Amino acid sequence: MNDIAPQSWEARADEFSMYGFTDLPSVHERGAVILTHGEGPYVIDVHGKRYLDANSGLWNMVAGFDHKGLAQAAKDQYDRFPGYHAFFGRMSDQTVLLSEKLVEVSPFDRGRVFYTNSGSEANDTMVKMLWFLHASEGNPKRRKILTRNNAYHGVTAVSASMTGKPYNEVFGLPLDGFIHLTCPHYWRFGKDGETEEQFTQRLADELEAVIAREGADTIAGFFAEPVMGAGGVIPPSKGYFQAIQPILQKHGIPLISDEVICGFGRTGNTWGCQTYGFTPDAIISSKNLTAGLFPMGAVILGPDLADRMQAAAEKIEEFPHGFTASGHPVGCAIALKAIDVVMNEGLADNVKRLAPRMEQGLRGIMERSDNIGELRGVGYMWALEAVKDKATKTPFDGKLSVSERIANTCTDMGLICRPLGQSIVLCPPFILTEAQMDEMFEKLEAALNKVFAEVA
Amino acid sequence: MNDIAPQSWEARADEFSMYGFTDLPSVHERGAVILTHGEGPYVIDVHGKRYLDANSGLWNMVAGFDHKGLAQAAKDQYDRFPGYHAFFGRMSDQTVLLSEKLVEVSPFDRGRVFYTNSGSEANDTMVKMLWFLHASEGNPKRRKILTRNNAYHGVTAVSASMTGKPYNEVFGLPLDGFIHLTCPHYWRFGKDGETEEQFTQRLADELEAVIAREGADTIAGFFAEPVMGAGGVIPPSKGYFQAIQPILQKHGIPLISDEVICGFGRTGNTWGCQTYGFTPDAIISSKNLTAGLFPMGAVILGPDLADRMQAAAEKIEEFPHGFTASGHPVGCAIALKAIDVVMNEGLADNVKRLAPRMEQGLRGIMERSDNIGELRGVGYMWALEAVKDKATKTPFDGKLSVSERIANTCTDMGLICRPLGQSIVLCPPFILTEAQMDEMFEKLEAALNKVFAEVA
Repeated sequence: MNDIAPQSWEARADEFSMYGFTDLPSVHERGAVILTHGEGPYVIDVHGKRYLDANSGLWNMVAGFDHKGLAQAAKDQYDRFPGYHAFFGRMSDQTVLLSEKLVEVSPFDRGRVFYTNSGSEANDTMVKMLWFLHASEGNPKRRKILTRNNAYHGVTAVSASMTGKPYNEVFGLPLDGFIHLTCPHYWRFGKDGETEEQFTQRLADELEAVIAREGADTIAGFFAEPVMGAGGVIPPSKGYFQAIQPILQKHGIPLISDEVICGFGRTGNTWGCQTYGFTPDAIISSKNLTAGLFPMGAVILGPDLADRMQAAAEKIEEFPHGFTASGHPVGCAIALKAIDVVMNEGLADNVKRLAPRMEQGLRGIMERSDNIGELRGVGYMWALEAVKDKATKTPFDGKLSVSERIANTCTDMGLICRPLGQSIVLCPPFILTEAQMDEMFEKLEAALNKVFAEVA
Repeated sequence: MNDIAPQSWEARADEFSMYGFTDLPSVHERGAVILTHGEGPYVIDVHGKRYLDANSGLWNMVAGFDHKGLAQAAKDQYDRFPGYHAFFGRMSDQTVLLSEKLVEVSPFDRGRVFYTNSGSEANDTMVKMLWFLHASEGNPKRRKILTRNNAYHGVTAVSASMTGKPYNEVFGLPLDGFIHLTCPHYWRFGKDGETEEQFTQRLADELEAVIAREGADTIAGFFAEPVMGAGGVIPPSKGYFQAIQPILQKHGIPLISDEVICGFGRTGNTWGCQTYGFTPDAIISSKNLTAGLFPMGAVILGPDLADRMQAAAEKIEEFPHGFTASGHPVGCAIALKAIDVVMNEGLADNVKRLAPRMEQGLRGIMERSDNIGELRGVGYMWALEAVKDKATKTPFDGKLSVSERIANTCTDMGLICRPLGQSIVLCPPFILTEAQMDEMFEKLEAALNKVFAEVA
């Protein structure tokens, strides 16, 4: 709408916002979408228009937008103790309870928890922890961080440096010492005639070669999402983590599982690393941790890193790091409830039960279309990859902005999904019912057909 | 207590926490303090012990620990719309309202707002914004960041690099390109025979010299807290900002006011920059912004930076940055209420009215002691500097941990204050009454007398 009314919500949003991760031509043409409330997996805007949010907000509103029990947990804690920190050996009782719970539900026998306000801060914190740890142990040169192309680890300068996306070049990132390996996406990056097993082996060989080139004694850690999220829902190639973990272990390089998206049920298990059969040295959690009701991140250190970090901190009597709202009592109370809701009130079960139905429905859409080249995903996280030519996997001309057009068309139809590269990502709330899933399929297919008819 | 009972709250905190900014010998000896609730400016632990928190949590709980109106604003929003993001041109109505309000109460005629979850993220974001902006305008070499020794700007790798504290060496920080100038603390760093005006001029000359040495075309921005907070409550020397701002303007270097601590009333005005008579190019806000009830930070760009950032973003059609919980509806609803409570419900007025009383009381304590060398501060933020010898300003032997002993003794007496270097910092909630202020004075002076008798 070039005629955004003065003093409208849309005009006020435009006047005062520095929009982030927003396609500005779209917002200029269509106006911002200003939301007032939600019902289950739906969100409703200032004009009363209703959208099925198949993006779960940003992967995180897994219990939907009006979960009574979660809101009650927040409200109770606001009445009890509405804020505190975790510095100076002081913290709220809720903080103690959540740390205990997080270690209990982690894949670790024991461990230690450090709180942040976001996944970005948790990854940034983990990097600082590794730099601190290695220096304390006499290896101050161990500073380089290994991640993969298409990885998403956040937006602080350091976590953006870990993120393997070309858009970070506009900031002059990555900083030195952040190395991006090949993305384990077989369909796109496998070579002609290469089997998936050979592809995985090639990536393992690359890791060995990079470690040899850089020197193991210069590498601080390897970070990986079990399934890449904002890279476009990319599950690892077959045997990927089983191939790389022994190499990392041989060279004393900790493996950090970034479970900001996968953690707490998205892949059908509590942790993505469980879905893919590996145990990392530490876990980064956020998003689902509070079901989106509170900004919170956590670093969960497994036994080895917990012991070594604690020893390093004892040596200088203090670990000089922490955020003002680290371990906020309201966030911890919400997280305790969210873990219970996801794990014990049927949400994780719903994902497990309906994931095959979701896969089947999306596979049907792919099979009926000449312009969907791949369906990939697991649990309640899936992507459909748009292609100009299915046989050759040729993408559309970037200038056509195909995925943005699909997402905008979906929005018009009352379905929110996310364009990522040339794929369309669907990661609905865990409460999604079969009828709501069908609504998602129908609107999505109608939008795909409309846009492909225009551009193909 | 070396006899922390197994399964006690203290033991459970020890087992599962990776403590941050915590003196580990103190926590081993005394046990962690686990808090359950609060009443006004008091917090209460699991054993029912009551503490007057003269630290306002971490500067941020300015309305105390049980403010009914703030809790109600949070609870209402949890019922209305408990979470959303601000990506893709979508955001909650509360986000629009808060951006409008922040520009309204800012020192700027107009501007744009970008949300984060903390002050660390807001400073980190501002650095990324400056890198992005300068590169977009054809100055990709403008990347160096100027701050001051003793500055505190946060704990992400980049905001910790801006922080001018020696403890960051254990992480191998600062990163390259973060330059720390002299701390504008006249009492400590003024030379023999140098007047305060001469000291300020020397710091301005240093700034000119550093810009000449580095090249103005390599410098992205200058960040300063109006009063240094975690550096130990250090107000600027006389005329400091008036001396440095013209130099920065001459060289096209934006001046960013980090108002995480000073903002929203702490110095007696809405902004610290107002107290010290300068208008920055952007403001970093957090902490008081939500009165500590929600993790939130904001970058408020003034007109010049807002226009240039917007133009830079339009050029590439998207500013590729944002946090999942940026502009969270609950945080925005709380911030709207907190701004109203602080500015219109008597809290800011209370600070203005009682600041002279607080100064007078602390001055009396200083004058009655042989071991307090300086009282410094403004509004409701003050520090008393412990010295072995008042005349020579000689500090105590670091091994005596004088300020930690004072803080621990205060804790035993039911008063929370903060040791910073060899100073004791007092930054109580804005709701502090005259009687509560007297309680603070009495407990503090008793603790000082006890500890100085032991060590002097």
